[in-house]
Amino acid sequence: MSSAVALGFERERANASQWFRSLRDEICKAFEQLEEEADPKLYQGRAGRFEFTPWKRSASEDQGGGEGGLMKGRLFEKVGVHISTVYGEFGENFRGEVKGTEKDSRFWASGVSLIAHMRNPRVPAVHMNTRMVVTGEQWFGGGADLTPTLTDQRRDDAPDAKSFHAALKEACDAHGKDYYERFKKWCDEYFYLPHRKEPRGIGGIFYDHLHSGNWAEDFAFTQDVGRAFLKAYLPIVRKRMIEPWTEAEREEQLIRRGRYVEFNLLYDRGTRFGLRTSGYIETILSSMPPVAKWP
Amino acid sequence: MSSAVALGFERERANASQWFRSLRDEICKAFEQLEEEADPKLYQGRAGRFEFTPWKRSASEDQGGGEGGLMKGRLFEKVGVHISTVYGEFGENFRGEVKGTEKDSRFWASGVSLIAHMRNPRVPAVHMNTRMVVTGEQWFGGGADLTPTLTDQRRDDAPDAKSFHAALKEACDAHGKDYYERFKKWCDEYFYLPHRKEPRGIGGIFYDHLHSGNWAEDFAFTQDVGRAFLKAYLPIVRKRMIEPWTEAEREEQLIRRGRYVEFNLLYDRGTRFGLRTSGYIETILSSMPPVAKWP
Repeated sequence: MSSAVALGFERERANASQWFRSLRDEICKAFEQLEEEADPKLYQGRAGRFEFTPWKRSASEDQGGGEGGLMKGRLFEKVGVHISTVYGEFGENFRGEVKGTEKDSRFWASGVSLIAHMRNPRVPAVHMNTRMVVTGEQWFGGGADLTPTLTDQRRDDAPDAKSFHAALKEACDAHGKDYYERFKKWCDEYFYLPHRKEPRGIGGIFYDHLHSGNWAEDFAFTQDVGRAFLKAYLPIVRKRMIEPWTEAEREEQLIRRGRYVEFNLLYDRGTRFGLRTSGYIETILSSMPPVAKWP
Repeated sequence: MSSAVALGFERERANASQWFRSLRDEICKAFEQLEEEADPKLYQGRAGRFEFTPWKRSASEDQGGGEGGLMKGRLFEKVGVHISTVYGEFGENFRGEVKGTEKDSRFWASGVSLIAHMRNPRVPAVHMNTRMVVTGEQWFGGGADLTPTLTDQRRDDAPDAKSFHAALKEACDAHGKDYYERFKKWCDEYFYLPHRKEPRGIGGIFYDHLHSGNWAEDFAFTQDVGRAFLKAYLPIVRKRMIEPWTEAEREEQLIRRGRYVEFNLLYDRGTRFGLRTSGYIETILSSMPPVAKWP
């Protein structure tokens, strides 16, 4: 535990962790509200509620931990909203792979991450994640991206794509002239399945190693990304959740979810990072869709 | 194409390719026969038939290819039996990772691979794969392993596990005193999910880089592994396919299949090799189960 303290940024780390928790609370509240609003004619069963499970990285040493939040609802078929604050030292096999650990293998990382798989195939799946990291260096990273499951929604000029991009652009433009262009491009490159030669969804933004030299400014941007996510996604859900769907659309959704699984297990750094740093397995793999098909 | 010829083992390569094809034919025939035998009271629809799709690694150059065989039946919910013979040169990112390519990046590989996902959760899933590889060196590799989906079948002393192990032991014992012990252990180590701290199934055998110095003997062993697979698996299917199953067992199967997906995408070398050598994507990922759950 002392190792983390020695990394510096003590007050900043506390502030960031606290923000990630409060953002988590706000998101969960908003999602539970949507569960309440869901039309019983389209969505069977009772409105879902989040269940929270705290976990620790180590039973014997203080290496941090987190709180996994999971809701299996009627509108949100499966959604995980997780916070974690972990610290310690990387083993030899990891060292050098993470920026700033070449000389000093200690790390501290705190963040919030979210993946929502919706029952209605007309409501896009979504992912959001923001984090602060301290190693020998300090940075922020994160982003948000939308994965519509139906082909006609998977175009950059589809209404949901346009409104999602617009909200993230607004957050970016308030903080850096070139942020939106750079982080949108980064997102398109990152959330891509080379073996399928296809993007995961319609994109959004992705950024990493953000260290402008002004911690407060970088933190403010990261906060705005979280807020923009909510501003972007909630209206999309409200608009789409009232649309009935067909069996064929459900089938298309389940196949699309298979691609989501492929991306997460083959390429996603967060998943790989989590599995290799003894993250809480149930939380890491809660990103997996409740049902997926490879027919 | 000349590069492959220059690697040597010309006649042996032809013999091996021919064997993998004939084994493929035998397996497909046996599986189609089981489809016919399936009791219509338990299995809806018509008996499945394999469909074969030839593919090439490159449209412009001769780099080999294969034939994907897929059956979506009533008993075999999804089964792929594939043959391929591929050759060419590894790119820089692969070189050195495969034995014998440190100095010479050319390779030739031929084999048969099979994964069967059964509709009835009481019938175990199965995997078999044998191959001959030539680089700067020459070897055989392969194996077979069984993945029962129900907990009470996932013990080494369960009847199916015992008969499966016994058939493979017989094949091993005919060729090498220590083969069974070594290759069974290798299988247990390979088909293991470290992040779950659990084995994929009940094991079987796994071997790689088999080069005793006697090509004919190594080939004969590899042939016997293929034959042992059929001898082991067909009776298990015949015995279990007549057992009715419950919804709860089906659910357990679908969750178990999720672990299968995790293994294949996170760890399986065959999958990774295929994706990185521009293998035919539909064939490589035909190992994915038709439906899987992460509830």
